[in-house]
Parts: sequence; structure tokens; C-alpha cells
Amino acid sequence: MTAVVPNPPVPGRVGVVGASGYTGAEALRLLADHPCLSVAVATADSQSGRLVGEVHPALGPAYPELELSELDLETLDGLDVVFCCLPHGASSTLVPELIGRVGLIADLGADFRFDSADVYPDWYGSPHDHPELLDSFGYGLPELFPNDLDKPHLAIPGCYPTAASLALVPLARDGLIETGSLIVDAASGISGAGRGPNEKNTFGAVDSNYTAYSLFSHRHTPEIEWSLQRTGATGASVLFTPHLAPMSRGILATCYARPDRTIGNADLADCLGRAYDSAPFVTVTPELPGTKATLGSNAAHVMARVDDRTGWVVALCAIDNLGKGASGQALQCVNRKLGIDETIGLTTVGVAP
Amino acid sequence: MTAVVPNPPVPGRVGVVGASGYTGAEALRLLADHPCLSVAVATADSQSGRLVGEVHPALGPAYPELELSELDLETLDGLDVVFCCLPHGASSTLVPELIGRVGLIADLGADFRFDSADVYPDWYGSPHDHPELLDSFGYGLPELFPNDLDKPHLAIPGCYPTAASLALVPLARDGLIETGSLIVDAASGISGAGRGPNEKNTFGAVDSNYTAYSLFSHRHTPEIEWSLQRTGATGASVLFTPHLAPMSRGILATCYARPDRTIGNADLADCLGRAYDSAPFVTVTPELPGTKATLGSNAAHVMARVDDRTGWVVALCAIDNLGKGASGQALQCVNRKLGIDETIGLTTVGVAP
Amino acid sequence: MTAVVPNPPVPGRVGVVGASGYTGAEALRLLADHPCLSVAVATADSQSGRLVGEVHPALGPAYPELELSELDLETLDGLDVVFCCLPHGASSTLVPELIGRVGLIADLGADFRFDSADVYPDWYGSPHDHPELLDSFGYGLPELFPNDLDKPHLAIPGCYPTAASLALVPLARDGLIETGSLIVDAASGISGAGRGPNEKNTFGAVDSNYTAYSLFSHRHTPEIEWSLQRTGATGASVLFTPHLAPMSRGILATCYARPDRTIGNADLADCLGRAYDSAPFVTVTPELPGTKATLGSNAAHVMARVDDRTGWVVALCAIDNLGKGASGQALQCVNRKLGIDETIGLTTVGVAP
Amino acid sequence: MTAVVPNPPVPGRVGVVGASGYTGAEALRLLADHPCLSVAVATADSQSGRLVGEVHPALGPAYPELELSELDLETLDGLDVVFCCLPHGASSTLVPELIGRVGLIADLGADFRFDSADVYPDWYGSPHDHPELLDSFGYGLPELFPNDLDKPHLAIPGCYPTAASLALVPLARDGLIETGSLIVDAASGISGAGRGPNEKNTFGAVDSNYTAYSLFSHRHTPEIEWSLQRTGATGASVLFTPHLAPMSRGILATCYARPDRTIGNADLADCLGRAYDSAPFVTVTPELPGTKATLGSNAAHVMARVDDRTGWVVALCAIDNLGKGASGQALQCVNRKLGIDETIGLTTVGVAP
Repeated sequence: MTAVVPNPPVPGRVGVVGASGYTGAEALRLLADHPCLSVAVATADSQSGRLVGEVHPALGPAYPELELSELDLETLDGLDVVFCCLPHGASSTLVPELIGRVGLIADLGADFRFDSADVYPDWYGSPHDHPELLDSFGYGLPELFPNDLDKPHLAIPGCYPTAASLALVPLARDGLIETGSLIVDAASGISGAGRGPNEKNTFGAVDSNYTAYSLFSHRHTPEIEWSLQRTGATGASVLFTPHLAPMSRGILATCYARPDRTIGNADLADCLGRAYDSAPFVTVTPELPGTKATLGSNAAHVMARVDDRTGWVVALCAIDNLGKGASGQALQCVNRKLGIDETIGLTTVGVAP
Repeated sequence: MTAVVPNPPVPGRVGVVGASGYTGAEALRLLADHPCLSVAVATADSQSGRLVGEVHPALGPAYPELELSELDLETLDGLDVVFCCLPHGASSTLVPELIGRVGLIADLGADFRFDSADVYPDWYGSPHDHPELLDSFGYGLPELFPNDLDKPHLAIPGCYPTAASLALVPLARDGLIETGSLIVDAASGISGAGRGPNEKNTFGAVDSNYTAYSLFSHRHTPEIEWSLQRTGATGASVLFTPHLAPMSRGILATCYARPDRTIGNADLADCLGRAYDSAPFVTVTPELPGTKATLGSNAAHVMARVDDRTGWVVALCAIDNLGKGASGQALQCVNRKLGIDETIGLTTVGVAP
Repeated sequence: MTAVVPNPPVPGRVGVVGASGYTGAEALRLLADHPCLSVAVATADSQSGRLVGEVHPALGPAYPELELSELDLETLDGLDVVFCCLPHGASSTLVPELIGRVGLIADLGADFRFDSADVYPDWYGSPHDHPELLDSFGYGLPELFPNDLDKPHLAIPGCYPTAASLALVPLARDGLIETGSLIVDAASGISGAGRGPNEKNTFGAVDSNYTAYSLFSHRHTPEIEWSLQRTGATGASVLFTPHLAPMSRGILATCYARPDRTIGNADLADCLGRAYDSAPFVTVTPELPGTKATLGSNAAHVMARVDDRTGWVVALCAIDNLGKGASGQALQCVNRKLGIDETIGLTTVGVAP
Repeated sequence: MTAVVPNPPVPGRVGVVGASGYTGAEALRLLADHPCLSVAVATADSQSGRLVGEVHPALGPAYPELELSELDLETLDGLDVVFCCLPHGASSTLVPELIGRVGLIADLGADFRFDSADVYPDWYGSPHDHPELLDSFGYGLPELFPNDLDKPHLAIPGCYPTAASLALVPLARDGLIETGSLIVDAASGISGAGRGPNEKNTFGAVDSNYTAYSLFSHRHTPEIEWSLQRTGATGASVLFTPHLAPMSRGILATCYARPDRTIGNADLADCLGRAYDSAPFVTVTPELPGTKATLGSNAAHVMARVDDRTGWVVALCAIDNLGKGASGQALQCVNRKLGIDETIGLTTVGVAP
């Protein structure tokens, strides 16, 4: 049963910036049924003037009159919440303008995920424009870093780092695994790569195809490492290999570590159980997790086992990359920041079959 | 925004009979987040003793302790609502036992969809066991037959008839189309054929395959005809050709009719617009409807056009066969019967991409 | 067993114009294992300078050194065969230049499919540039129009017309069906819409989606009508409704007709049986055809039945739209024109599962 | 161009035992177009009496009259080749009966893959019935173990071991990687799990789902280790994690190793290049391999890189699990054993899109 709905004096007014992309559309989808938040503005420069339902037919019935507009700061003035669903780099230009103008910013890009600007030149190709603002943003993964939500604004984690960190961080924090030479092998549905059409994301290219990409160079690598380093594992190192699976949504991270001491499956289960005991969206599953059980939801399914024969620890986590991996997680964090029960407008139940 | 939630003295207690199948699982999915209804019993003879989450991993987080049980009438005693999600024939045995024992029965099978038992020998292979009970069941397609909900119990329409009737019935009722020789050509995702594994529903058989099935003999044929006949078109005749498309969910019905008089697209749009003006789940779309926009939702997208060149009228309707085509529609009708806003626990927004 | 391979004095030298698209790639795929033909030139303006394997990874092992080149007439001089795999309109500019310069032209576009230029303004948006050349091209559907292969060059039929005509033409020719008000309802995999990325052909848009498109306006409509008219049914009229199914390849045409006289299933089977008795690629199937059985092959599976209850005749045909619906059919015709057994380099066996 | 076809005095007569399953069907598919081999018998106990085309519609046109028969040793007497496409355990009963009765046995099961029976109790659950016959079978992976084809009969490798070994064995043999603690993370299409319908392989279970399975316990683990040990790496140890991807065919193995000495990408490319220089079916690709490029073919695409940052070596291999991973490889080995060019009846070109 859904938790009790609070009764705010007025519903919060929300803006979605970048509403033509997948994470923007997912934010609109979740907000459509949210009892305390109402979408006032949805911007999408390339599609401005079109009705939401023309660009996203699934959203037509819920937003019959909402028109996508060009980004215009004045239309955002005084909004209670803004979801920034822009490609990397765009947020760092926009956010300085938004601060002070709107209540709460939830940025789904990578621009404010790190507490230091050091990572940007190497992994993102250029220095950060506004390092002074990094301290205003908390990393929105509340099951692992709840105190980050005390910061004024929210930097929503990447999809792969959400899955990998939910699987690995509790084990690292409890000293169950070595962190100096981790492997994260993960597969994602194609929506993780964005909505813009290109040679790599046509149906003909993706269907019946399973392939690795961005070998050694995916930008989520330092984000996974940084989450591990925050547990005290300062030397944490991760080889991250992302793959594309022929599906629209879903991420499974299969993570490999050497145990830090003699451990058994009970230690792993106990560690994860304690970590997520009061987390409504994270379930420690008895069976190997699959992505479909999380489709369309904000759920994360995690599991860890040790192989007595080879000594390897395998930790797995399945999420919907657009749900717990992006817009669902953003809404969960926004709910908490606004004093609303974090489960409002979100579900733990995936759409299956 | 979700409509206002009523405040019943106590949440309604619900039973789901046949909870191991797809429509049963979908009922559980929708009920998991319903603010006024709570699942007390879920039966599934073949899986009794297993946790819901073992059989349906997506439902595990929402029902961590619910065990599937054998069907035992005593456990259903006094329930406010029972969703019967059984194969055809099973309901006609069970329902007589349930009447008087539970409040409201929503039967998703075909046993109580017709007001006469005449159709059963020809299309379902044997006479009806309890024709005297047919009058206790209304046909749960409230956008077209709202008065049926005055009957004590609910017979939920088949998935194809829901789509075909939403497209055709308003046109027939307004005399825009001839009904003596209609064609309904429809495609469905594989979940419409049930969850039990067989040679036809393995991934290897369905993937990359588009095929017709049950030519001239699909049991939904008389149901579509009967809905049309209820509009006064006593001679309504339908050739229905179902197809399987390589997807889990979704139905698109593409219906062909000759116009009954000189009509234009404006007449068709006007007719559908009036029919669904106050229907929260049916949208008359400006573009050709697709199934994905309805995935996971209770939405129906309809459209009709006339071809000046050939004279044919084409009417289309897209739904999720497990949503508006089954369990979503059941919940919509149950909501109405219980005096709850019909939209509670349901959404118009499909999960896309 | 493959038929005996003839022993031409030298292998034929082939050019593929438009080799970056799907039909061009399929031509290269089939030619890679052809014992009598060898690809000398493959052009693709937008990708010139790249190796074939960079653009089409599947083709890399077979063409390790073949580079896509810009279209340059001199490089085509003296080729035995040229496959023109260009978008509509492009061929009508190129072909006049090719005539006399190369041996045999197989044009996969629509520019030379009709024997009169009348259809082009209405359905293709502009008059034909070279109506005087139409007479040099035969319509390459040898099971139905074998004499067309006496013309100097080949216009390869569209994918939908191939499927619809294989199902309907024999029935019309034998007077079994009325042709004045036919319906062709067909579904295709997305490759039929070409390889260029756009909003409609991303995986996110196509996966789990079944939708109609080009209602009343698809350019293959007059081509289907024209094939029927060639049987003597001068008033043949077709309402054609194409759909997209979530798969890469495959077309199933489900065609509806009124019988022209009292007929039974034996008449239909007899008619199709006689039509395709000696056709190596067309099989009259006892079960309803599905697209997957033809995937990757040059096979067509056809079937027709009459419904005693409603009187409708339903004729179905499944093909691979890139095989018998495009490049496979082109190679079959080329084989025949060159005096090679028509089955060389082609298979009747689909890749399933 | 296909290599020159030899001219055997008579075509070889072939039997396919277990022809109702996926590997049996794939053997029939490949043999249908083979110029020197002809299928005389196809057995399938559960489907005996049915035409091949009823069970496998794709094969109907090529085998219009071939009936599946019950396994009867007398019908196999004197066959030149028998492909045994049976589940594990079945071959070890059948093979002793076949020896002496037929020419060449190609067993696609696991019963004769190892040169010692030691592995069977632990990984296959029971001792081997006929350890004395192991020496009569060579391991049919000719690119790595060509001398094995000197043995009288063929044990065809498992699908995952084929992919993993093609990626890792050359690197291990040349001492480029440590073999004591390898990880093989692989994803497969569902056909690898066989054709029999069950809860795990329905479309509803597989579509949109990516999941790990058989954690720490997959039977292909010791087979991968054994191939590595044959290079002299007696202590080779592999953690193997198989995954299911939502596709019918294809395997990608992503393998992780520590370098054994300071190496660069040039060393890896050089090693693989030398290993596969004269191998017609193995291509060292410049881009990351994907499964679709190999679909329906006997191709393997391999690649290896070292990450300077973390020190890990990643080696990848993509194949079609039913092609190079099963029946294609079997035919390749049979060709060689019969003195036919190994490429006859096989292709390097995948069916894409």
C-alpha cells in the first residue's frame, strides 16, 4: 500500500528542463500521477512549440495541453523544483542561472556529481566551469549517502554508478572486499544512451545484438570509484566494461572482487541486509536479479555471493536505468528534500511481463 | 494529477484467484499501490506454498510475505472483492460458490461475458453450466456500456474485444458504418496467450516472428459481434484475424468497415470525440496509435479515418492487453462499483521507451 | 541440395550502388558466397573511403579490403551487373547514364517498376524524368510475370507488393476473388524503412511497439493494384495498411477479398499449388505462415482460406523484406538473366530460431 | 567467393540424431545447402512421424518430404556422418552403439569433450559410463587444437567455451596473461538453453530481461579451464558468469585477465593475428565485436586490449552460439575430416540487420 500522502498547502510547481529526452520524459511520466507536484513548465529547445503528446505519445493523455517551450529563465522563476535533464556540460551553464531563482534543483547530468573538479578534465574533456558550486550539490543516492541530502541541491547519480555502488559500497564499507582491483561488468538497455537517433541506436543496430562499448573510457568509471573512495577505500580502482543489451531499459551490474578476509555467503547477505533494511526501494533478493523485475519502477534488486572454488566475490544489482538509475531516483530525492514520503509517486513493482 | 482519494472506513480486502498467471500478476501489480484496496489472499494451485516474489520477481518487493495458496473457499469468505483470473471454464465452476460468500466478483474469463448462453457451444465447445447466473454479471466496458455496472458482478471483456469495440461501437451506434461485413485485423503481444510455457510462446518461437493464428476460429469473434449487436446492429458480422507480434504486451486493432452513408474524417472524429469526451482512459489521438504508448497503463488510444479513394473506413485502437484489456479494466470497474474514483491506482501514461 | 553450379568462362563482375543501406548490404551479403559473381565496386557517397566492414561489421570477414567509394560512372564501366540500391528518385537520374555502360541493371527502387509513367505524379510526387526508359525494364517477380525477364533490365518489386502479389495474383488470375475492393493489411520489420537513423526507427521507438503508418498513402499501393490489373482485373482496387512490428526483418501480408464465386479451401489450395508448383522459392504451407521461417532467405510462404461463416477469403504471404522482398529477389532475377540456375547463392531456409 | 567445391564420387549420407532441438535444426539448415552432404535420416523421438517442416517451419521448403523418425540404430547403419544433437548424457549411451556402425560421429553434447573422465562426477553429476571411448574423440576447435581432428570422431565444444577459448587461449599460450584467476563474463541468446519450453525461456520471461544464471556452477566452466590447461597453464582457474540477453542467438564473452608481463595493445593484436592468420572463420576486429555481425554464420570476431590505467587485459569474442558455437563448428570439423574444404556450406557473413 502506498504510504500516507501528506497534505501540503499547495502542490509544488515543477519545471522539467530537457523534456524531449528520455530522462525528461520519464520525469514527466512519474510526475503525471504525483499527488503533491504539478508540472508547470517543460522545455525542449529542439521541439519547442510541439505538444508533449506529439513528441511522447505515451504522455499525451496526461498532458493534453502542455506545450514544450524553449528554455527561458523567466518561465522558471519561482518554481519549487527544477529537474535538469540535459546532456553533460549543459547543466554547468544553466545551473548558475537557476540558483536563487528556483527552489530545488535536481540535476540529472554529471556536472555536479563530484565534490572536486579534478575528475572533469581527464574524463569529461574539459575543466569544470563552476567548481565553486560543487559544494552546493549532494549526491542523490540516499541509501548510501543520506547526509548528502542536506546540501541545497541534488546531483543525481549516473545509471551505472547507481547499480554498481548499490552492489559494492556496503561490502567495501564493511571491509568484506578488496577495492584495489575491482571489475564492474554491466549491461544496459539502449535508452541509457539517450534518445537522439544515430547509427548505434536504430532498431536494426540494437536488435539481436549484444556488444561492449566505451572500453576503458566510460565516464561513469570515476564516479563508481569515487563512491567507493568515500567509504574510506582511498585506493579504490575499477575496471568498468559497459555493454549494450537489446532492450529499451534496464541495467544489471555484475561486479567482481577479491574478498578482503575469509567470508561466506552469510556475511555478504548480512552486510547487504543491514545496509538496506529500511530502504523501501532496495531489495536483497534470494535469486539472481534480472532487469525486467525492475522495469518502470524505482526498485533495485541486489545480491552477493562468494565462490569457494575460485575465491571471487560476485555482487549484482539490477535497476531500471531511467527509474532508480535516473528520474525515479531524482523524484525519490526530491520527495525527501520536500518532506514528502520518499515513496510517493514511485513504485517498487516492475512492469512484467 | 491523481484524483482525490476517498477515505473509506477500512481498506477493501481483496482476493486474487489465479495469481500465478499474467492477468493475476497484473492485478497484484496494480493493487500493490492502490490506496483503498489491500490483497488478503492470492491463490494459485500449481504454485501454492511459494512466495509471490519467487513466481513473479517483480512483485517481490511489494509483497515480501504473501504466499500463494491453494484455492480454499473459506479463505475467501467475506472478502470485499475477488478478481477471478482463471482460464475459461474454471470460473463457471467457481463463481456459483463465490456468490453470497464475497462482495464483488470481477471475472476476467469468458464465462459470464454474454447475456445469453447460446454462444458457448459453438465457440467454447460446450454448453454453459450456469446460464441462470449470466444475468448477475455486467460487461465491464464502462465507456460503452455504463449501465452494465448496475449488475451485481463484473465480467471483464476480452482483450481483443476491448480494443475492437472501443474503435467500432461508437461508429456503429451513430450509424456511420455498415456492420454486416466488418473486418478486425489485430496484433497482440504474446502475454495475451497466457503464461504457461509451450512451443508457441518460447522466446525462440516469438522473437522476430509475426504470424496469424486461430484463423476464423478465435473465441473473441462472437464477443466483438455481440458488442456491436447491442448497439442495434443485429446483423453485425465480423471476420477477426488475430496475429502475434514479437512483444510481451500490447494490442492494436485495425478495423475495416464500409461507410453507411457519405461521411468524412470530421464525422468520424466528432463521433469518437463525443463518445469519449468524459472517459479518462480513452484518448482520441491525432496520430496513428501504437501499442507502446499504452504499455503498463489503462489507456486506450483510438482513431478513425475514411479513405476517399477506396471508400473504406479504418478505425484503430491500441491498448495494453493486460491493462485496459484485462486487469486494468477490471480494477477500473471495481473502483466504480465501490464508489471510488475510477482512476485510483491506474494511470493513463504508458512506460516508454 | 544446391543445384549444379554452371561454369561460366569468368565470374561476372558486379557493382553495388548504394552499398551503405540495408538492401545494398544484403546484396553484398548474398554475393559474398556466390560462386559465379564477384563484387568489384561498392559505392556509398556518404560513407566513401570507409571499409565495408566498418559500416557493416557482419560483412567485414567476407570483404576485408573492399572500400566504399563515391559513385563514379567510370568505375562501373563494363561491369556485368549493377545492383542499384538507391532511394526512390535517385535511380531515374543514374540509370540513363548506366544504360550501355554496364551489362545488366537491377534497380531496387520504384523508378522503373511501372510500364506507364501515370502513377508517379500522384503517388511519388512528381512526373517521371525518363518515361521512355520504362519499356526497357521488366518487373522482377518471375513466379508471376516470367516474361518480364525478357526485357533488357530489371525493376525489382517493392517488399509489400511482392508479398501481397504472391498471395493475391494467382487467385485473381483464376477468377476466385473479386478485385474491386481488396484489403491488404501487412506488417513489416523496421528494415523496410531504410537504414538512416531517425526518430521513428530507434530501438526505443520500435521495441514493444506495433503501429500502423502511412495510412491510405503508402507508395506500394498502386504497385499492388497494378500487378492485379495485369491479370485482367482492370478495376482492381486495394486498401493497403502497412504496420511496423518490433523486428528487424520480415513481412506478413494478410489480404482480404470477397470470393468471386462459390469456392472452398480446396479451390484455393489448388490454385496456389498450380501457380507455384515449379517455383523453388514459394511454398504453399499447410499452417499459417510466419515471418521468422523466411528470415535471411529468399523463401515466400503462402496460404489461402475461405471462411464459410462470413464468406471472406484470407490470403497470406510471409517473406523476408530484404530477401524475397528486395535483394534476394534481385539476385534470383539476375541469376535467371545470366543463365545461371536461379537458386545459386540463395536459400529457401530461414534462420530460426 | 566460396572456395572450389570438390567432386566426391557420391555425396555423403548424413544422419541427424536429435533433430527436434535447436542444434539439430541448425545442422539441418546448414546441410540443406551443402553440395557434398545429404541428409538421409533425422531422428527425434518426441516428434517422430511429423514432417521436419511441421516442427521447424523454416526447414519445410528444403525438406518437403523428410519425416522425423524414432531413433533406430538400423536406419543409421552405414551413414557417412552422424551429428548427435542430444542433451548431455544421452550421447554416452548412444555413441558406443554407433561406433563401427557409421563413419564419422560428431557429438555436440559434453560426453566426449574431455580427455579424462575426472570432471564428470563434479560438474555433470555422475561418473562417465564409457571413459575408454574418450580417447576416440578429438575436441573440435580446429583453430586452436588442429591435431585433435586426427582422432576418429569429433566432440564439438560447448558454445561458451568456444567463445572464451578463442579469446583467451592464444594469449595464454603466448604467456601474455596470468591464468590463475581469470574471469569470463558472457552473455548468450536464449537458444543456448535449448528448445524445450519452460518458465525461463518464454518470451514473457526473456524479453526486456538481462540476468545472470548458474552462478559458479555452469558446466562449461571446467571446459574453459581445460582448454587453457592444454596450453601448459596447468593451474588455470576461471570464474565463469553466464548471462541471458533478450535475443535468440549470439554469445559475447568478455574475459578479464592480469597481464603476465608488460604488454601493450600491439602485443595482443600481434598474438591474435598470428593465431588466426589462416583461419577463415576467425576475424580479429578493429572495433569491439557484437553478436549480431555473426548471426547465422560460422564467424568468430575476436579482440583484445590492455587498460594502462588499471592493468587489466580484456579479451572479447562474439559468435553465434548455434553456428561457431555448435552446429556450424560441427560442420566445419566434418568438412575437414572428410577432406572437403572447411568453408563449404558455411559462411562468414552474419545476417544483419
